[in-house]
Amino acid sequence: MARLVMKFGGTSVANIERIRNVALHVKREVDAGNEVAVVVSAMSGKTNELVAWCRDISPLHDAREYDAVVASGEIVTAGLLAIALQNLGIGARSWQGWQIPILTSDAHGSARIESIHGDEIVKRFAERQEVAVVAGFQGLHKATGRVTTLGRGGSDTSAVALAAAIKADRCDIYTDVDGVYTTDPRVVPKARRMDKIAFEEMLEMASLGAKVLQVRSVEVAMVHGVKTYVRSSFDPPDNPSPGTLICHEEDIVEQQVVTGIAFTRDEAQVTLRRVADKPGVAAAIFVPLAEANINVDMIIQVVSDDTTTTDLTFTVPAADYEKARQVLEKAQPMIGYTNLQGATDLVKVSAIGIGMRSHAGVAARAFKALAEKGINIRAITTSEIKFSVLIDAAYTELAVRTLHMLYGLDKV
Amino acid sequence: MARLVMKFGGTSVANIERIRNVALHVKREVDAGNEVAVVVSAMSGKTNELVAWCRDISPLHDAREYDAVVASGEIVTAGLLAIALQNLGIGARSWQGWQIPILTSDAHGSARIESIHGDEIVKRFAERQEVAVVAGFQGLHKATGRVTTLGRGGSDTSAVALAAAIKADRCDIYTDVDGVYTTDPRVVPKARRMDKIAFEEMLEMASLGAKVLQVRSVEVAMVHGVKTYVRSSFDPPDNPSPGTLICHEEDIVEQQVVTGIAFTRDEAQVTLRRVADKPGVAAAIFVPLAEANINVDMIIQVVSDDTTTTDLTFTVPAADYEKARQVLEKAQPMIGYTNLQGATDLVKVSAIGIGMRSHAGVAARAFKALAEKGINIRAITTSEIKFSVLIDAAYTELAVRTLHMLYGLDKV
Repeated sequence: MARLVMKFGGTSVANIERIRNVALHVKREVDAGNEVAVVVSAMSGKTNELVAWCRDISPLHDAREYDAVVASGEIVTAGLLAIALQNLGIGARSWQGWQIPILTSDAHGSARIESIHGDEIVKRFAERQEVAVVAGFQGLHKATGRVTTLGRGGSDTSAVALAAAIKADRCDIYTDVDGVYTTDPRVVPKARRMDKIAFEEMLEMASLGAKVLQVRSVEVAMVHGVKTYVRSSFDPPDNPSPGTLICHEEDIVEQQVVTGIAFTRDEAQVTLRRVADKPGVAAAIFVPLAEANINVDMIIQVVSDDTTTTDLTFTVPAADYEKARQVLEKAQPMIGYTNLQGATDLVKVSAIGIGMRSHAGVAARAFKALAEKGINIRAITTSEIKFSVLIDAAYTELAVRTLHMLYGLDKV
Repeated sequence: MARLVMKFGGTSVANIERIRNVALHVKREVDAGNEVAVVVSAMSGKTNELVAWCRDISPLHDAREYDAVVASGEIVTAGLLAIALQNLGIGARSWQGWQIPILTSDAHGSARIESIHGDEIVKRFAERQEVAVVAGFQGLHKATGRVTTLGRGGSDTSAVALAAAIKADRCDIYTDVDGVYTTDPRVVPKARRMDKIAFEEMLEMASLGAKVLQVRSVEVAMVHGVKTYVRSSFDPPDNPSPGTLICHEEDIVEQQVVTGIAFTRDEAQVTLRRVADKPGVAAAIFVPLAEANINVDMIIQVVSDDTTTTDLTFTVPAADYEKARQVLEKAQPMIGYTNLQGATDLVKVSAIGIGMRSHAGVAARAFKALAEKGINIRAITTSEIKFSVLIDAAYTELAVRTLHMLYGLDKV
């Protein structure tokens, strides 16, 4: 007997038929004698519809009201799945965030879970053999009594945090793919499903574009050591594949230097020429951008040919490119650059692997391989366990396939 | 300055444009210096969609889960209207049933409101000039912490009960018609909008088929003496018509004998011949029907030609007719009737008026008028302030128009 949390995303509960299918997955675990809590997302498309209504009514909507509205989608799925389980003869009840409660900060729209009171759920496992069906993505800010949401993909975090709270043996994240792949199989048909991946690697993969899990959920799993599986709800309920286990580094026997290749499309690059090389100039650039809610990513500073000034390059989401230009043009007198250059239609390709820590020259091999394919690298950033290159979007597939093969990730 | 509750039904909030229009109605009252609480239904069609999903998943769904699911529609509207009001510069926040809380019984699907804690809402009127936007139709059962719903049309009851709880000066029920009519204007073009109607009359009108208000809401308004107006949200927000006031009998100066004509379609009639005329036989008939959730309406018992037996006639909704026959055929040995007769395609037409109390022969005039038109009356029931006749559905319009004219209700 084990205690587990099963999480099902929007495509897994997209309609009544799929919710019935999810109930069969839950039944399998219950029949095996497990104590089960299920976390569900809204039916596919529902959250988008609710978000669109909020925006339609007013572009500057109150985040507290937005949260109340968008959190309703998960309430519906939780109730419907509870009914579907009961229909299979399984005791079940739905839980909304405020009922458990899942207490969060008051950062509406991107609240952080502070505590989950899972005692009643655990008690009901023992006393009633009852499955808890929990509405994901949502919580309660205690002091104000308002409903909060955790941000896009927040149900992953709900699931992992619930698993930590009820001391579950594992957390199974069901999605529309059967695990974590070495890269996007739509780009590289030879991409392999991994059996295991370390938390740190998964964190980088998720941050750098792999959409399989919300970044925050991986952080929570790592901090609390929640054994997390990524699995497919489209596998047959009576015989699903095991998926990919996300676990501590030391639980992975055969380490590879590079574990996966991630990429994010729709990047834009901004370069400011001959910025005065003096204290405070970085703040003059990045504070106005932050105030305009523009996410700045790769930042590269190089001394320009003239040694009293510096050239500064960074990336922003392509959607924010025009806004960033306007902000920087307005701030020109404060920053004092001579020239603003930019480019859109870029992609950031990253290679991730804990093995990089102990292997030198991993990135250098990539630069060489990309150069041999005629791919121009516009910017590079590196960290302990990953490196990223910024290239023209036209070369995305070529670059990803090149790196995937270079590091021996192709299916054999 | 007055304190008021405004209630908007599903068609009034059917889409974003209409929600914006509702916000203008609320703004008019706020600008006039009033303290305003708004109660909203789900967007038109949403509740039906949620109900259909519950039924699809399992015909025998858990009423507690059903309530959690269907109550989500009102949450969405409340949040969206709060945003729309803020967009007009009006302070507003949404309230879900459990947040206020609106405490109810645990009769899921048709819960009764037990208490409403309106203190915080009233405090915010004074301190923040904040409009309270309340999700109708829903409440909280305190002991179990589960969400409850009040049954179809329950938002009317939410509004009237809230008005009583916060001691509102009046409760305006906005709908798609501009008041209560002497009968359905689609059937009788000469139907008149009433300026006033007594609670008791409105109660009968609602019970007997006028769909303008939920029956329970009229009861609550009557008990607590809530001055309730029925108005139209489709009137121009800057110049709406006053609607119909539902009030105590003594506040109506010019009493009419008959106030309105109501009707319910899709009735069926069941007659049991030669039922043994002995104690317990009524229970043998009506207990099995109640257990099968069949609503029995008009019941008429007459001694049959043989004096030791009796004939029993009653009506059921046409949709339940076949089920009722089956139940009664199964119970035949217990009841002991000789013959079961029935008819469908019937309609019940009722005339309502407090004036009937003090005027004799009101019903008799109707029977004569209907007979003169060749309309056969299959059953009659009467009470202090109304009488009903059961006739063939084909004569519905003729009967309603005949009675409408007979009692002087036609527009002059």
